[in-house]
Amino acid sequence: MENIKTLIENNGTRELQHALTDMNNIDVAECLNELDNQKMLMVFRLLSKDDASEVFSNLDPNLQQHIIEMFNDTEVEALIKDVFLDDTVDFLEEVPAAVVKKVLKNCDPKRRDLINKFLNYPEDSAGSIMTIEFVDLYRTITVAQAIKRIRSLKIDRDTINTLYIKGKSRTFVGTLAIHKLLTADDDTIIEDIMDKQFISVSTDDDRELIAEKFRKYDLTSIPVTDKENKLVGIITIDDIIDVIDEENTEDFQKMAAMSPSQDTYMKTGVFSMAKNRILWLLVLMVSATITGNIMTAYNKVLESAVILASFIPMLMDTGGNCGSQSSTLIIRGLALGELSAADSVKIMFKELRVAIVVGLALVAAFLIKSAILPPAISMSVAIVVSISLFLTVIIAKLIGGTLPIIADKFGFDPALMASPLITTIVDTCSLFIYFNVATRLFHLA
Amino acid sequence: MENIKTLIENNGTRELQHALTDMNNIDVAECLNELDNQKMLMVFRLLSKDDASEVFSNLDPNLQQHIIEMFNDTEVEALIKDVFLDDTVDFLEEVPAAVVKKVLKNCDPKRRDLINKFLNYPEDSAGSIMTIEFVDLYRTITVAQAIKRIRSLKIDRDTINTLYIKGKSRTFVGTLAIHKLLTADDDTIIEDIMDKQFISVSTDDDRELIAEKFRKYDLTSIPVTDKENKLVGIITIDDIIDVIDEENTEDFQKMAAMSPSQDTYMKTGVFSMAKNRILWLLVLMVSATITGNIMTAYNKVLESAVILASFIPMLMDTGGNCGSQSSTLIIRGLALGELSAADSVKIMFKELRVAIVVGLALVAAFLIKSAILPPAISMSVAIVVSISLFLTVIIAKLIGGTLPIIADKFGFDPALMASPLITTIVDTCSLFIYFNVATRLFHLA
Repeated sequence: MENIKTLIENNGTRELQHALTDMNNIDVAECLNELDNQKMLMVFRLLSKDDASEVFSNLDPNLQQHIIEMFNDTEVEALIKDVFLDDTVDFLEEVPAAVVKKVLKNCDPKRRDLINKFLNYPEDSAGSIMTIEFVDLYRTITVAQAIKRIRSLKIDRDTINTLYIKGKSRTFVGTLAIHKLLTADDDTIIEDIMDKQFISVSTDDDRELIAEKFRKYDLTSIPVTDKENKLVGIITIDDIIDVIDEENTEDFQKMAAMSPSQDTYMKTGVFSMAKNRILWLLVLMVSATITGNIMTAYNKVLESAVILASFIPMLMDTGGNCGSQSSTLIIRGLALGELSAADSVKIMFKELRVAIVVGLALVAAFLIKSAILPPAISMSVAIVVSISLFLTVIIAKLIGGTLPIIADKFGFDPALMASPLITTIVDTCSLFIYFNVATRLFHLA
Repeated sequence: MENIKTLIENNGTRELQHALTDMNNIDVAECLNELDNQKMLMVFRLLSKDDASEVFSNLDPNLQQHIIEMFNDTEVEALIKDVFLDDTVDFLEEVPAAVVKKVLKNCDPKRRDLINKFLNYPEDSAGSIMTIEFVDLYRTITVAQAIKRIRSLKIDRDTINTLYIKGKSRTFVGTLAIHKLLTADDDTIIEDIMDKQFISVSTDDDRELIAEKFRKYDLTSIPVTDKENKLVGIITIDDIIDVIDEENTEDFQKMAAMSPSQDTYMKTGVFSMAKNRILWLLVLMVSATITGNIMTAYNKVLESAVILASFIPMLMDTGGNCGSQSSTLIIRGLALGELSAADSVKIMFKELRVAIVVGLALVAAFLIKSAILPPAISMSVAIVVSISLFLTVIIAKLIGGTLPIIADKFGFDPALMASPLITTIVDTCSLFIYFNVATRLFHLA
């Protein structure tokens, strides 16, 4: 890559063109993404026609936009013709209306209609991520005829790995893996070797559900059908990996109390980043008023036994950590489909047992630590802290284990019930327990 | 699935066999996973030879073990012969030595050697997840010869989608997508249409790095070569999706202060779950001693201005949340390869600007809230809390943004620098700031 940059600096056009031909197109796109617009365009123009369309598909939307803006109509037409439909749609979703218009103007009418249709599918639906580059065959033809047909097609994509079989009135009836076709006898009828237990989705199915099916059935592509059971497109696994990555990023962000953002860290502006973070911080800050009020209500206790205050951070942190451990496991289990609302009783019981083991271990550690390290504390303070610590762990694990399940049951995203919210709730409970144990059981104030 | 259960209850063997044939084998495996050992074995014996090997590959290890234990040698031989090598290795890695022995005894010697070799590859390496079911061709043959050769092979797996081309002394020289082979002319030499810019990995490459390559280059399979550049296996994308899921689960667990566990929630025992959680809780609890010591050191301040105590939970929670927002974004960016240690200065600067915006917004919200809601506070307390809040946000975001990068630079997993640890560190800083602002600047005690 350094080599390429040197060649660009030195205007070594000839060597540059050679070097580009030898490179993987995705690496070329990565290089171009790092150049300024002018140099990027200079290099892009050096690419062969075939490479140009693949490199274009892998560029950042702002560079794609710049290329379309600088190209004349003939150039746009030649470029866009060779870009896969799903990649064209992906990029048109990101650029201003003027650029969309210029691209559509330079498409043939059939393709223009298709693009418009695809742009109208709801975001995150099967329709929005499918492609129409697939091969379909009638079920009545023979293997030899099918192979002949496939060999005569100009297919430049690996979507041939599964063939889609249609019956009467072009309804979708089955799938056929290419290895089955190739290893069958010439005279065999397609219908006899096709797979009728295929898995399919419909255009408005959610992409998360589709990822679920790829995962479960180890698919590499899935057919998308319309309401009349006709095949309208297929979804390939490379797009599903992107979906899985994006869904995971969303969960990570929600679990850290942020509004999810599709852009990468470097590409998100300071203000939109601040905006994503402020809402939840405000909600949680205002909720912490309750904890503050508990502290205020027990001002007298703190005044007369100020030593109690020094254990508050430890209790709050431990409670928050215990709760977020449980909620993380449950949220992840729900996301991967390993857990469901039906398991809630089992989960509660398991969390209770784990909490008892963890709680006892922590209390033991606390008592040992107090005996060895300063500050020296009285027996009654040690007991008050121990009881509060144990109860905090139990409550934290039960709340952390239950809230994500409840959220899921009521149609909210379980990822919202993660560390920050759980911490705020558990803090309230643990302070309440702490002061009550101190005053009522031990009359420390 | 309910239907299947009813048929099992009613001993409807004939109908059951019919229903099973119509079902997807992965769904059959899911059904069997829910049955007790005896019923499971009864149903498993009803499966056709072809279905049995696929269903077996998708069963839980304890059921696989039970089947091997209950089958006689001839049955084991017949079953294992049809299970793909990588699936066999996966299952042998999970079961006791006696079961491994029984399986190896009933394999032909060549397969036994291969299995032993695969079992010896380090966990998480390319060798441990690759399969040997691939098709390789010499580069000097023609397209017609290649197609003839493929059609004569008994291939029952979709690993045919990419063909692997070998040169002299069987060294690996290129890949060829099946669609390119099929759409080329009969007389074309393989060498002229193969892809020489292929991406490959070696047997001891880490699986996370491999997932990275699949993601970047939109691959569906990748060749694995040995030190002499000979092809020893391939890795298919269905295994990579499992890798991505497992790596994400590991990150989620580490970020919530747990030791990662490969098993699902329901399959992890209470004690091993407690064990996974206790270590970090202990570390963090002992670290919270520092916070406690700060509180003890400022006992006098709290005694004379006990109102200050009531803002401690709010300050601690906000600091923790701000820090974990930043660390989560950085950890995720590092995991997806979008950020690297080279970006650290840019990240610091961005976090600083975001922190100023967020900090000012939170201070404004705090002042408005204090003016409207009880308890009424004095002007000096309001200013002390505001200054501390603002500084806490700045420090939290800088610590949260920096620590994961530093961890990455020194070869530690950035996921460990998440919410729990950041919270503990930020708590210490924010209490220190709070008490110092209160005493030094405003002489509140």
